[in-house]
Amino acid sequence: MKIVIAGAGAMGSRFGLMLHRAGNEVILVDGWADHVNAINENGLKANLNGEEVVASLPAFHKDYLEKEFAADLVIVFTKAMQLEGMMQSIKELLYDETKVLCLLNGIGHEEVIEKYVPLNNILLGNTMWTAGMVGPGEVKLFGNGSVDLQNLAPGQEEIAKEVATVLTEAGLNAKYSENILYSIYKKACVNGTMNGLCTILDVNMAGFGETKEADAIVEAIVAEFASVAKVEGVELNVPEVLAQIKGCYNRETIGEHFPSMHQDLITNNRLTEIDYINGAVARKGLKYDIATPYCTFLTQLVHVKEQILGAK
Amino acid sequence: MKIVIAGAGAMGSRFGLMLHRAGNEVILVDGWADHVNAINENGLKANLNGEEVVASLPAFHKDYLEKEFAADLVIVFTKAMQLEGMMQSIKELLYDETKVLCLLNGIGHEEVIEKYVPLNNILLGNTMWTAGMVGPGEVKLFGNGSVDLQNLAPGQEEIAKEVATVLTEAGLNAKYSENILYSIYKKACVNGTMNGLCTILDVNMAGFGETKEADAIVEAIVAEFASVAKVEGVELNVPEVLAQIKGCYNRETIGEHFPSMHQDLITNNRLTEIDYINGAVARKGLKYDIATPYCTFLTQLVHVKEQILGAK
Repeated sequence: MKIVIAGAGAMGSRFGLMLHRAGNEVILVDGWADHVNAINENGLKANLNGEEVVASLPAFHKDYLEKEFAADLVIVFTKAMQLEGMMQSIKELLYDETKVLCLLNGIGHEEVIEKYVPLNNILLGNTMWTAGMVGPGEVKLFGNGSVDLQNLAPGQEEIAKEVATVLTEAGLNAKYSENILYSIYKKACVNGTMNGLCTILDVNMAGFGETKEADAIVEAIVAEFASVAKVEGVELNVPEVLAQIKGCYNRETIGEHFPSMHQDLITNNRLTEIDYINGAVARKGLKYDIATPYCTFLTQLVHVKEQILGAK
Repeated sequence: MKIVIAGAGAMGSRFGLMLHRAGNEVILVDGWADHVNAINENGLKANLNGEEVVASLPAFHKDYLEKEFAADLVIVFTKAMQLEGMMQSIKELLYDETKVLCLLNGIGHEEVIEKYVPLNNILLGNTMWTAGMVGPGEVKLFGNGSVDLQNLAPGQEEIAKEVATVLTEAGLNAKYSENILYSIYKKACVNGTMNGLCTILDVNMAGFGETKEADAIVEAIVAEFASVAKVEGVELNVPEVLAQIKGCYNRETIGEHFPSMHQDLITNNRLTEIDYINGAVARKGLKYDIATPYCTFLTQLVHVKEQILGAK
């Protein structure tokens, strides 16, 4: 299968490498020039569970793309705010049959992708794999993971199952899901509470969760996610979602961690993905005529903080 | 007139001193033992526009109160969260005719006061006087000011005018207002935006006001204040209120200042008055069945931050 990894950071590199080793024809596309150049000069280097691996994978800067590659499958793995630019860059690789599998965190990415490919060709997924960057052209890939994925449009189950098979044959442990939007919304609820709140309040998850107001705030935000999800046919099990969020407060497990958005904005002064979490719920709320004041206000506060800190 | 200053910090000391010098029988009540003791030992010392003044004013710790003083007028000048405790402390000084003038910042204090005196005896006011603490028993009182005040219950105009006269005779430049709730709500809108937002975002007023989201956030909050005020018969002029708030962003005047709540919580780790600004709007919203999500969420965020910082 001819596969484009659109966004070849740590996770994209993992998927690209494993699919390449399974015999697929893979190209990497990314916006980080040093990374692209290093891969082209020295191959993609990976520490794959302790084994040093070097793979000859063609890499392209997204602004200087090989135009002769007609992709069967595109796996998008950009940061949420880079998705539109990436789709624009790769549009000449897309033909009528090209499937696009979106594995980004957050919700509402289909709104961007369907400007470039028909809804019938879009697959949404959720992955538990992890990966880390070591430096340009070099990644570390430890541990195990899995992928759940599903067609977005009804009637396209076969396509989703076929892509799951290709991923599984590459060791990526993928399976067709009956209800991918449910998993995506559930994960988004965790991100939609912990990320924005711990960022604005400059506190770790336990520190937030131990305050008297934590439950009321989290319940208000999750209620907005649930109302919007319902319009899209997803009936969130709210008590289950709340229980998962409260699990994040446990100091003996992950409670003393700061969520990734805090690292992005407060530690590194980088722009956040808030528009694709709470901001997406706010936009969907407007579209569906559902009030989402907590998501709207939290999105605004994070954007204000980005500007105060001069985030880029 | 027999006057109790209930809360004799800098502002209470100013009012107490000026009323005492005008021939009223004044006692000071406060919860700060060092301040009370210093006043009783050395008198209340004040630098009054450059003149060193010492006044023999009886001062009482609120928990050890002279019970034989039947007050004609109580002027409450506590921090908002100390009001209930102060009213409890002074309740034996109140008789059927005692008037209570509330000059606290924020809104909704009448809900506390009317547990102790009839609505007919409550006056609300707004003051432009300033004052500063130098140390226990010592204040600095510079500049000029004024007081606007009004009876809360209809038909009690004469009482309000009489109290205004007593204050004016003491040089406090008071006048009867036709619409004190309007002034109080207008001031509360400025505090209800600048205080909570600059505190949570850790930014000065200009830094907040210059962000792209500032207008939308401020408009959402002021709309909630206006909806609640309307039920209480106050028709806020929203464009006028917004213009006053935007005036706070000006770097050449006050824009580079941090509001007092930021100083209280972020600089000094003290509890804030948020429950008597946005929190009061949230409570009134519940009572009047008006949605106030921005005020509610902002109140919650400030309380969470208080707990994170161990504010006292």
